[in-house]
Amino acid sequence: MVFKKITLIGTSDESFDAAADDAIDRAERTLDNLKWVEVDELGVEVANAPDREYQAEVTVAFELEE
Amino acid sequence: MVFKKITLIGTSDESFDAAADDAIDRAERTLDNLKWVEVDELGVEVANAPDREYQAEVTVAFELEE
Amino acid sequence: MVFKKITLIGTSDESFDAAADDAIDRAERTLDNLKWVEVDELGVEVANAPDREYQAEVTVAFELEE
Amino acid sequence: MVFKKITLIGTSDESFDAAADDAIDRAERTLDNLKWVEVDELGVEVANAPDREYQAEVTVAFELEE
Amino acid sequence: MVFKKITLIGTSDESFDAAADDAIDRAERTLDNLKWVEVDELGVEVANAPDREYQAEVTVAFELEE
Amino acid sequence: MVFKKITLIGTSDESFDAAADDAIDRAERTLDNLKWVEVDELGVEVANAPDREYQAEVTVAFELEE
Amino acid sequence: MVFKKITLIGTSDESFDAAADDAIDRAERTLDNLKWVEVDELGVEVANAPDREYQAEVTVAFELEE
Amino acid sequence: MVFKKITLIGTSDESFDAAADDAIDRAERTLDNLKWVEVDELGVEVANAPDREYQAEVTVAFELEE
Amino acid sequence: MVFKKITLIGTSDESFDAAADDAIDRAERTLDNLKWVEVDELGVEVANAPDREYQAEVTVAFELEE
Amino acid sequence: MVFKKITLIGTSDESFDAAADDAIDRAERTLDNLKWVEVDELGVEVANAPDREYQAEVTVAFELEE
Amino acid sequence: MVFKKITLIGTSDESFDAAADDAIDRAERTLDNLKWVEVDELGVEVANAPDREYQAEVTVAFELEE
Amino acid sequence: MVFKKITLIGTSDESFDAAADDAIDRAERTLDNLKWVEVDELGVEVANAPDREYQAEVTVAFELEE
Repeated sequence: MVFKKITLIGTSDESFDAAADDAIDRAERTLDNLKWVEVDELGVEVANAPDREYQAEVTVAFELEE
Repeated sequence: MVFKKITLIGTSDESFDAAADDAIDRAERTLDNLKWVEVDELGVEVANAPDREYQAEVTVAFELEE
Repeated sequence: MVFKKITLIGTSDESFDAAADDAIDRAERTLDNLKWVEVDELGVEVANAPDREYQAEVTVAFELEE
Repeated sequence: MVFKKITLIGTSDESFDAAADDAIDRAERTLDNLKWVEVDELGVEVANAPDREYQAEVTVAFELEE
Repeated sequence: MVFKKITLIGTSDESFDAAADDAIDRAERTLDNLKWVEVDELGVEVANAPDREYQAEVTVAFELEE
Repeated sequence: MVFKKITLIGTSDESFDAAADDAIDRAERTLDNLKWVEVDELGVEVANAPDREYQAEVTVAFELEE
Repeated sequence: MVFKKITLIGTSDESFDAAADDAIDRAERTLDNLKWVEVDELGVEVANAPDREYQAEVTVAFELEE
Repeated sequence: MVFKKITLIGTSDESFDAAADDAIDRAERTLDNLKWVEVDELGVEVANAPDREYQAEVTVAFELEE
Repeated sequence: MVFKKITLIGTSDESFDAAADDAIDRAERTLDNLKWVEVDELGVEVANAPDREYQAEVTVAFELEE
Repeated sequence: MVFKKITLIGTSDESFDAAADDAIDRAERTLDNLKWVEVDELGVEVANAPDREYQAEVTVAFELEE
Repeated sequence: MVFKKITLIGTSDESFDAAADDAIDRAERTLDNLKWVEVDELGVEVANAPDREYQAEVTVAFELEE
Repeated sequence: MVFKKITLIGTSDESFDAAADDAIDRAERTLDNLKWVEVDELGVEVANAPDREYQAEVTVAFELEE
């Protein structure tokens, strides 16, 4: 059994929770066997977004098929 | 005056805030003189939980009795 | 073009999101050209606050005038 | 010449060495030009495995084709 | 559901694997609901041991009872 | 032979040395077989203390009985 | 909007700048919507290269398509 | 004698050296008694700049007047 | 309530304690509402000082006025 | 009593334990009064070795003669 | 002009300052052109010393001769 | 096969690349079997140098003779 980890950054104009969910939603739509998620960093983009854009960088781990 | 620090992980199916509160609630029920809390890590358990389980690892500091 | 970074700690009796917004609100009132924000640390003050006081230490980057 | 790095977690019910080899074996079956491997973290899963499951998170570097 | 983490150092005159197992064995004899283990550091004591003493510092997580 | 590590914060209105000694004194009164101490962090509390309160966060390691 | 981050190592026998550009050039040829790049590490390979081979490990972030 | 440290990010469309110099030039125009500079991070902005914009985050230390 | 953090380096030809106090004295003379201090680094300048110059880099936190 | 620390990398085509022992053996042949060893990093060389070459970077501490 | 850095651990039964001075004294007796010293870690040996033995791990930088 | 690592700081009044080369040149003149180099830190000395002195702290690894 081997797992792989990849790093995504989700965004939301609402909250850090929603930003993390945004990245996890994306991971679940495109990866099978998602196992767990680690939050690496939180941030807010101010200048290049109409409102404050909350960002959550997450690393997601999923099991590779044999 | 001496403080001690211990590390707890709270869980919630709602949010990271609720996961942190879960651990702090537990600390307040069992420890006197709780002083402050540091958030060490945030994560999400996906595979071994019915829904997404938000997790907050926190270190809590409390004052030891003389 | 040169940016400067400073470190603020926002507080809230509601949530970590509100604590981060508290610091960013302050930065926007007093600094021009705010660009982005990095969350350094999250914590909770228990002993020296009437309720739990959520704290978010953030580093904000803004562009210096020529 | 450009290299790419990806992160895998190998598992074994024997030892950390075998867990690292598990991840490297997987990398060698699916990637050409594997160059070197860095061990990021070692851990043991106890609750969700029949026996102790030794885990080795490794980052593997391989050369990309032109 | 709240977890607690504690830090132990196991020792062995054989190998790092055996040193980690030494600490995990101890944790399993004295703690219920042991969940997972993270290896923090590996080292070798030379001067204050008859042979090389392999050491593994591990952090073990277990679920607290309600 | 298994060691356990715990984290204490000693305080003093004199010096960092005295703050570290404060935590070690406490550890020696309540723990057998204290082995070594690592200094994690030094700080000074200004606002919530009559004078400057020097603080030393230390991790102490002691041998567990069989 | 979700971003993904991957890690590449560019090489050059000229300079660290050229090594970083080497990795960014590669990323731009194979990825759409490249956004920003973080330099993780710089190094020099001496033994397995005819000359000094400057290396720059970079993490590149790009926006995933919906 | 007391020093203060502040953090700046210089930019250049040429190189990391020029980006660091950009921040140091700015510091020298506005601060007396600049003493030394530490490079914290290097990066490249791709999407929000016409060309690759090299960035160097530096911390500069200067002596405060009595 | 928002706090700001700044970084100072105090010096002394006596001890690390005196070097930290030197920076805290300076902060107290020029900042209102100083709250707490974290010691970031300790060092000793040998070549550019007549005697050993003990240095303490500290980060001081103070409350901003509304 | 003053100790010195140096950093060695041992290698083995067998295991990480043997790679660490390789470095410690070398240290014991050439240094008196070896005291303890810290494992800094583990890795595996794949491309420039006939088989997988396990590597253990260790820091060894020894007492200097008066 | 090239500098070299080496790592020493000084000891004292008095204080951390004296432990750091112990290592710096040693460095000054055996190395020319000592420039500066960084304190890496502080600790206390309890079990293998008659009294508490304060330890300071320092890295010293000195200029190499042409 | 055992490698040793040592830490040097090269200097240049031109660029970070030249500062790193300065340290590597020195290592090659005095050490056989130099293998690879890791850049630890970049900095600039302003006050104690006639011009800006670029500095590159590097760790060099070389193979020890049997």
